[in-house]
Amino acid sequence: MITIILVQPQMGENIGATARVMANCGLTKLRLVAPRDGWPNKKAENMASGALSHLEPIQVYDDFEQAIADMHFVLASSARPRQMVKPVYTPEQSMDSFFERCQKNETCALAFGAERTGMVNEDIAACQGIVNVPTNPDFSSLNLATSVSILSYEWRQKFLDKNGRPEFDTGSANKESPKAKQKDVGEFIARLEGELEEKHFFRSEGLTPQIKQNIKNIFTRMDMTEQELKTFHGIISALLGHKRPKD
Amino acid sequence: MITIILVQPQMGENIGATARVMANCGLTKLRLVAPRDGWPNKKAENMASGALSHLEPIQVYDDFEQAIADMHFVLASSARPRQMVKPVYTPEQSMDSFFERCQKNETCALAFGAERTGMVNEDIAACQGIVNVPTNPDFSSLNLATSVSILSYEWRQKFLDKNGRPEFDTGSANKESPKAKQKDVGEFIARLEGELEEKHFFRSEGLTPQIKQNIKNIFTRMDMTEQELKTFHGIISALLGHKRPKD
Repeated sequence: MITIILVQPQMGENIGATARVMANCGLTKLRLVAPRDGWPNKKAENMASGALSHLEPIQVYDDFEQAIADMHFVLASSARPRQMVKPVYTPEQSMDSFFERCQKNETCALAFGAERTGMVNEDIAACQGIVNVPTNPDFSSLNLATSVSILSYEWRQKFLDKNGRPEFDTGSANKESPKAKQKDVGEFIARLEGELEEKHFFRSEGLTPQIKQNIKNIFTRMDMTEQELKTFHGIISALLGHKRPKD
Repeated sequence: MITIILVQPQMGENIGATARVMANCGLTKLRLVAPRDGWPNKKAENMASGALSHLEPIQVYDDFEQAIADMHFVLASSARPRQMVKPVYTPEQSMDSFFERCQKNETCALAFGAERTGMVNEDIAACQGIVNVPTNPDFSSLNLATSVSILSYEWRQKFLDKNGRPEFDTGSANKESPKAKQKDVGEFIARLEGELEEKHFFRSEGLTPQIKQNIKNIFTRMDMTEQELKTFHGIISALLGHKRPKD
């Protein structure tokens, strides 16, 4: 498993958010290099929402060199640095490389710089490569906790690729004609409920909210087309004994 | 393009973090349903770090029904709900579906619930399906900004799949024998610098830090094996005219 290293993190909230998303993604090894407000940190604990007990004890170092001394392979999360020749990985490529190396029992780490500066060049120079999240070039700078979230998620994705995903339900069936808008579906459901009320369909007051929710669910889940919605209106009218309007 | 909807967000920071990661990922349409602290919100603006000017004007609604009235297809980011039959999408599947629908000019939204409660069942019932981030079952609850980050990132990934990625450098070449540890590489670099200093290699004081950084870069980039590191030590010794120790 990879180790996450936060270098000179300024805000405890970001350490806490890091711990939380790490636990969400099954990562347990966190190192801090010279956290501005020291460690432990109350704001971090609050933000972690209980995640710290899912992690191994957090290790704190004075400088980056010490924090990576026992590592075989370290990548820096960073924008592409100028004037520095380093391999640049996409998030997915980085996880492929990490998994491959972890399987050979290499120790691997992923490092993140301070909120304001990101990884400084001197620390990047000590890394084997860079991971760059391919953001919008017009607004590329990621929040620290966001960077950690995205890369921890990619770790989790790769982990599930190798170890099997939980089964997922697939999406709804294909339809052809234009879809009905929520507003029209909502009006249909309201109409149906109104008609059912008139017919004393909802007998038990205690159960009524649950039954109404179930009805709402059935009709929103259908992902109806406009035509299907018209058909349903027609069905209700027919069932109520209304005459069909002439076309 | 999909619209992001935050339903009753409590903390301005999370609205700001949402705006920032949306801009990072090329998303521009944000709607808020009854934000606890109103809108505009100073904490949100600070956290957005300038992202708000990259978004369309944020739209605020009183309730979820109004916020989705003009939408054709809405997914809720949520854990799997009990007692409710809804299609459950992985993040990737959800983006496939969103892209397909957007191409047919269907209006699509992705909704997130409040920090404490997540999406409430009544609002989920109004959605066509659920997107579930496959987190660690032992610690599954995601921070709001983290959920938005992961799903915005998946949108961006799908966007780059369709529209072409920027070119990336690939990782370093394969090696066979065990990799050298950072500590040993660092010691080698320090030794080399020391030797070079003795030989007056660093003549211009102004350029020395840059040259040292380049040297550091060269040797860390090589991702050396233990054997290669030994070889380099040998090379330096040889160049210095030291005798080779007997094996």
